[in-house]
Amino acid sequence: MKQGTIYGVGLGPGSQDLMSVRADRLIRGASHVAYFRKKGRTGHARSIVEGLLALDAIELPMEYPVTTEIPFNDPRYNELLAAFYARSVAQLTEIADAGRDVVVLCEGDPFFYGSFMHLYTRLQGRVPVSVVPGITGMSAAWTATGQPVTWGDDIMTVLMGTLPEAMLVEHIAGTDALVVMKIGRHLDKLRRALARAGREQDAWLIEYAAMPEERIRPFNEAVDSVPYFSILVIHGNGRRP
Amino acid sequence: MKQGTIYGVGLGPGSQDLMSVRADRLIRGASHVAYFRKKGRTGHARSIVEGLLALDAIELPMEYPVTTEIPFNDPRYNELLAAFYARSVAQLTEIADAGRDVVVLCEGDPFFYGSFMHLYTRLQGRVPVSVVPGITGMSAAWTATGQPVTWGDDIMTVLMGTLPEAMLVEHIAGTDALVVMKIGRHLDKLRRALARAGREQDAWLIEYAAMPEERIRPFNEAVDSVPYFSILVIHGNGRRP
Ligand SMILES: C[S@@+](CC[C@H](N)C(=O)[O-])C[C@H]1O[C@@H](n2cnc3c(N)ncnc32)[C@H](O)[C@@H]1O
Ligand SMILES: C[S@@+](CC[C@H](N)C(=O)[O-])C[C@H]1O[C@@H](n2cnc3c(N)ncnc32)[C@H](O)[C@@H]1O
Repeated sequence: MKQGTIYGVGLGPGSQDLMSVRADRLIRGASHVAYFRKKGRTGHARSIVEGLLALDAIELPMEYPVTTEIPFNDPRYNELLAAFYARSVAQLTEIADAGRDVVVLCEGDPFFYGSFMHLYTRLQGRVPVSVVPGITGMSAAWTATGQPVTWGDDIMTVLMGTLPEAMLVEHIAGTDALVVMKIGRHLDKLRRALARAGREQDAWLIEYAAMPEERIRPFNEAVDSVPYFSILVIHGNGRRP
Repeated sequence: MKQGTIYGVGLGPGSQDLMSVRADRLIRGASHVAYFRKKGRTGHARSIVEGLLALDAIELPMEYPVTTEIPFNDPRYNELLAAFYARSVAQLTEIADAGRDVVVLCEGDPFFYGSFMHLYTRLQGRVPVSVVPGITGMSAAWTATGQPVTWGDDIMTVLMGTLPEAMLVEHIAGTDALVVMKIGRHLDKLRRALARAGREQDAWLIEYAAMPEERIRPFNEAVDSVPYFSILVIHGNGRRP
């Protein structure tokens, strides 16, 4: 029997009509739809496609065993996650081996800091896999600010809030345009890093870009906490006629 | 009379079905469609939407007065381009003032090193402008390599081949994942910079990502010249369970 294909489908930043035409078509036509979620939640990826799935589509929620309960440098964190990915891969492979395609829903662009990559590397060579790129969260974030992010030969750097403060400072000081993702509990460290790099006045915070709760404000007005869907943007200022 | 809106619409990397559902809908419904092109050419943005436009859509090609004939640091280059953008803005504003919407076709994501930004900043405050983000060329490029580009807390840097060699070396050496765009006539300089940063073995060259002519090969196999639609990618190698 011909194996089915596993599609890693980028959903874009969150608005249903910012999904690609190819993603829309694959999702509407899917017999099997898989997605990550936290236990007991709908799952953000699943909520983006609400109303698009076929009535008889089979849903395969893949529930994270840990997210923030165990620090990521604890060896148990990696063990639990690795076992979880192995289980998910076994489930997807079984369906593909039975000749059915599976659409895996991925927030933003699947290959850009996405969770799907952990399945992807384990699926490679075992079943056919096809990846559909998507609009990233950062594209929606800079679009929401109403200002272009990069001009001419601006340098753009993408950093994660999880990096050590000294590395943040060095790279914030050395770039023109800046994007910081995964801010979460690293807000204070990020604020100090921006100040040490002398750039706290230039930074914008975009929460829930392209979602109904979208909110844009100067980064230094974010005093207490930020939601998971938060991105910092500093615009470049390059050559322009 | 109510003014029309100018839509800066991201087309994505080149494949028609990688355009967003919103872009697809706006383009199919547009009464006026504007796009940049070189004199005497179809224009790449226009060719992406072939077959989608309404039969009675009015097309407004905006023809670049110069591209590579005059070096960009010649003052006449900026003068010519500034006058060209002013003329285009006048034309678009006139249509919007008459109450009609205009869709401006933009390759990739409009706010990411796009030409539309030069119209955008001049239109702001004069007519309503709405920007639709798109899948970037770089997302299509790393997707084409079949390997995720960034993991965990990888740092990603985006550089233009037009930068001075010393800056290229510094930033190539200091990043995990790398994207280089606008390679064109800077291939030799870029190759030297990669070698000086010790990373020439890690680099991939993607030509025409997501287009029929798509081609992927190790960067050091690109010996002579590369087309305009070329992107260099070095994958990050970050933390993964
Ligand atoms: C695991 S990464 C996934 C990135 C995703 N693959 C993409 O292409 O955007 C999660 C981080 O992306 C950022 N993010 C993604 N989409 C977002 C959105 N619509 N608004 C704000 N932040 C977003 C947040 O910083 C979040 O912490
Ligand atoms: C003026 S920039 C425009 C970037 C565009 N706004 C985007 O979001 O990708 C032009 C450069 O983008 C890169 N590029 C854009 N789309 C591409 C594609 N589909 N394949 C290869 N390179 C591409 C090339 O490096 C080219 O020199």
